[in-house]
Amino acid sequence: MGKDLEGAEHGSYSAKDYHDPPPAPLIDVVELTKWSFYRALIAEFIATLLFLYITVLTVIGYKSQIAGGDECNGVGILGIAWAFGGMIFILVYCTAGISGGHINPAVTFGLFLARKVSLIRAIMYMVVQCLGAICGVGLVKAFQKSYYNRYGGGANELADGYNKGTGLGAEIIGTFVLVYTVFSATDPKRNARDSHVPVLAPLPIGFAVFMVHLATIPITGTGINPARSLGAAVIYNNEKAWDDQWIFWVGPFVGAAIAAFYHQFILRAAAVKALGSFRSNPHN
Amino acid sequence: MGKDLEGAEHGSYSAKDYHDPPPAPLIDVVELTKWSFYRALIAEFIATLLFLYITVLTVIGYKSQIAGGDECNGVGILGIAWAFGGMIFILVYCTAGISGGHINPAVTFGLFLARKVSLIRAIMYMVVQCLGAICGVGLVKAFQKSYYNRYGGGANELADGYNKGTGLGAEIIGTFVLVYTVFSATDPKRNARDSHVPVLAPLPIGFAVFMVHLATIPITGTGINPARSLGAAVIYNNEKAWDDQWIFWVGPFVGAAIAAFYHQFILRAAAVKALGSFRSNPHN
Amino acid sequence: MGKDLEGAEHGSYSAKDYHDPPPAPLIDVVELTKWSFYRALIAEFIATLLFLYITVLTVIGYKSQIAGGDECNGVGILGIAWAFGGMIFILVYCTAGISGGHINPAVTFGLFLARKVSLIRAIMYMVVQCLGAICGVGLVKAFQKSYYNRYGGGANELADGYNKGTGLGAEIIGTFVLVYTVFSATDPKRNARDSHVPVLAPLPIGFAVFMVHLATIPITGTGINPARSLGAAVIYNNEKAWDDQWIFWVGPFVGAAIAAFYHQFILRAAAVKALGSFRSNPHN
Amino acid sequence: MGKDLEGAEHGSYSAKDYHDPPPAPLIDVVELTKWSFYRALIAEFIATLLFLYITVLTVIGYKSQIAGGDECNGVGILGIAWAFGGMIFILVYCTAGISGGHINPAVTFGLFLARKVSLIRAIMYMVVQCLGAICGVGLVKAFQKSYYNRYGGGANELADGYNKGTGLGAEIIGTFVLVYTVFSATDPKRNARDSHVPVLAPLPIGFAVFMVHLATIPITGTGINPARSLGAAVIYNNEKAWDDQWIFWVGPFVGAAIAAFYHQFILRAAAVKALGSFRSNPHN
Repeated sequence: MGKDLEGAEHGSYSAKDYHDPPPAPLIDVVELTKWSFYRALIAEFIATLLFLYITVLTVIGYKSQIAGGDECNGVGILGIAWAFGGMIFILVYCTAGISGGHINPAVTFGLFLARKVSLIRAIMYMVVQCLGAICGVGLVKAFQKSYYNRYGGGANELADGYNKGTGLGAEIIGTFVLVYTVFSATDPKRNARDSHVPVLAPLPIGFAVFMVHLATIPITGTGINPARSLGAAVIYNNEKAWDDQWIFWVGPFVGAAIAAFYHQFILRAAAVKALGSFRSNPHN
Repeated sequence: MGKDLEGAEHGSYSAKDYHDPPPAPLIDVVELTKWSFYRALIAEFIATLLFLYITVLTVIGYKSQIAGGDECNGVGILGIAWAFGGMIFILVYCTAGISGGHINPAVTFGLFLARKVSLIRAIMYMVVQCLGAICGVGLVKAFQKSYYNRYGGGANELADGYNKGTGLGAEIIGTFVLVYTVFSATDPKRNARDSHVPVLAPLPIGFAVFMVHLATIPITGTGINPARSLGAAVIYNNEKAWDDQWIFWVGPFVGAAIAAFYHQFILRAAAVKALGSFRSNPHN
Repeated sequence: MGKDLEGAEHGSYSAKDYHDPPPAPLIDVVELTKWSFYRALIAEFIATLLFLYITVLTVIGYKSQIAGGDECNGVGILGIAWAFGGMIFILVYCTAGISGGHINPAVTFGLFLARKVSLIRAIMYMVVQCLGAICGVGLVKAFQKSYYNRYGGGANELADGYNKGTGLGAEIIGTFVLVYTVFSATDPKRNARDSHVPVLAPLPIGFAVFMVHLATIPITGTGINPARSLGAAVIYNNEKAWDDQWIFWVGPFVGAAIAAFYHQFILRAAAVKALGSFRSNPHN
Repeated sequence: MGKDLEGAEHGSYSAKDYHDPPPAPLIDVVELTKWSFYRALIAEFIATLLFLYITVLTVIGYKSQIAGGDECNGVGILGIAWAFGGMIFILVYCTAGISGGHINPAVTFGLFLARKVSLIRAIMYMVVQCLGAICGVGLVKAFQKSYYNRYGGGANELADGYNKGTGLGAEIIGTFVLVYTVFSATDPKRNARDSHVPVLAPLPIGFAVFMVHLATIPITGTGINPARSLGAAVIYNNEKAWDDQWIFWVGPFVGAAIAAFYHQFILRAAAVKALGSFRSNPHN
């Protein structure tokens, strides 16, 4: 707010204050020999499993209360939005130091495009995220099979009255909001100035998820996380959920790509910097 | 909070601990030659667009649920207040390092009065904020034209039973709460003592927006942001919305001016300081 | 959580790490000559005014919606609890560096008992807090006189079915929760170890207010702040509100006194320390 | 998020950056002679008492409103979840520096398994937590005996339609989420890098409690804290509550044990480290 926060932008930092880490290699064989890589996969698997377990359980519990005539006292759409946002907050907090705390193939994809994770790590993260999501929704179904099937299985589907373009657009912009927040929170330039920014980062990231759910639950049920959408579709296994599934992959990946582009080429001005452009201070 | 927090006030800081940055010039031609200026305009445009997109989508989705007979399970006024407050939290967090994170012409006006941004920057920020807001509401209309028109377009209007004076007063005090929080959070004196204050600032700023919405949604729908009110009026283009529009410009600008006066002349005691007054320690 | 956080307790800090500030004098004539004292009074006045304005407006708006047949879509008791807790969060954040951010005679009383503010400061704070509260509620009434009187004026009264002892007990324990949190957040011992604790303090203090409102709104409407109760009683001026008023002074003052005793004599073990007791390390 | 946060993991920290504290002894006679030990017991007792008092009062107040025909305006399940999560946030914040802020026998058990507290401390903490919980619920009953008995006493019971296996599973996974968050927040390795992590820890820990309540209130009323379940059962003293009581001890203890195992042997890789495994950097 105001020039105060911005002052540091205006050239007072020398090149020593921070450096962009070198781009992650596409294929990094060395990381495959490290325990920390496998530990990261385990952490992503468990985190995505817990994410889907808690959130889908909240959705089903809420819908069963409505159906039971207790219309006004369930957690409501507001409670569901809190469940998604709050879980991302605590899971990013818990796993940031282990795996980076992605818990979402769209986030992994965005960070891969910005060359912050290697191709092999990106692919493996997405695989374990999807497996974790399937297991998390599977647990909910195992706990309460009849409720689970009766109340829609927590699957993402386009609501009546919206066309596919609207659903796709909602997923693209929603994921843009999330991945833009992720990039802002993990910017190494910013971290150099404020070393505790990464510790605070999970809260705005969780809030971004919360906000997008408030806005788009009535349209698509809110995906913005292909693992979440796939996990529910696999366990619910309903034709409509499968028909709309592509929206929840194309939308989030496009949104993440736009966010990566926006952050790297506009806000960080990587392109302009490369061209040795008109700015007097090349570090801005 | 006791004297502990306040102890540092009592003269133990020398002039070296902080300095007020010099007032921003009214017209700063140099900043027009810097990429960081244009980047800030882009960031303000995108942030205001996302702010209006998410919040108006939440409002419309909520009203369509009520109309659909699902009275109890929408996000409610509480959810709408969260949408506005939460979006300001994450957008200020994301853009503070790029543009200062105003996202609101009233905030820009207050910071201009306190000479923290130049006149040219203030005007350009307001222009792109208004453009961003129009585009954000336009996206919502493009997604769901029939719902959008049917459910009031997210426009700010004076509710039945309140006169214009009440609406204006509500906007003035509401904006005062917001801009007062912004000044408190970005006080360079405070930052010198606690270097991480600016990082935490987005949370109370977001909460200020949340609180004001809880209190004044029933009166005016809560503006406290002329770009937000203009964007909805342009896209909704309803006579009543245009008739009341002046309230949502005069109110926020007056409130921001009072907050700037209160912070600069009472709390920071700039006037007293200038007069070389009776205080023993001129730095308090 | 766990010994980790607690490790520092076990004697590894020498006396240099922190010192308790000397007790505030009962009457400090010097502070009356400082501008910072009068500035603190202004800040307390404005903060209490804004606190009552926003919260009572939320209460009245909510009740008018219920009466208007829109039963399910108001902010609900949850929204009211957020309004009280959230306003305390932002107002403590904004005024902590100016006045200590009390905004509540019970907090001022507790800090006076712990000798953290002088008697003269304590009395003057309580006076301006009460004046601010009266003005804040007065603004709400001026804005919407008919709604204000019809919907109970935001006054604290004992609900039907509860006796005075229960109401008093609820106020005592509720204020204990609040003032205990205030003492924990401003402990100079803790601050020495973690210099940013005071900056974070407003959030748990606001949450303490939020929690107590969730629990006791059905019993007393939740006072835990004599200025808040007095302000509403003066403006609403209803016999029942005046009859119960003593509960909202005695309860909070007793609760604050118990919290001050608990913190100073049990947790900080001032008494044990004074007696040169059996502990090996006198600084624990 | 991303490799940025994770960079520090990759071997750049020498052994000096942090050290695991030595395991707590099973029986530590010396701590019995210290005032800080008894002070910690008092703090745990008071914190658990306040936790149960506020939360059960919220539950009873909410149910009495529903029964009174005011179906839509109570705090709802969302408000109850906030009461539990929010109280844990402020109580962990307040007591972390005194007792470690457990307030839950399952947390104490998990930290004992990880050898972070001695056996004698663990047992004494559990005893005072249970006593505190009984007193807290007792206070609620004393305040409003008729409501208390009529509305279920805040006791944890398996809801109709769920079998015991489901209830047990819900408690195990719910407690896992909580204790996993506790371990992540208090990791000494992480603290070495970011010294303010423990100060921020109460917020994600409180959110973990909030999230689990959103998901499992419809199944078991959500225990994940044996002291909470015991306290309500003792005061309510209902046969069904006693019949299901074992679920709320076995579930949380198993969940805490799994979380301790997951953190110590997978994430911190204690086992692999002990075996001198294939990793190049033994400190990862």
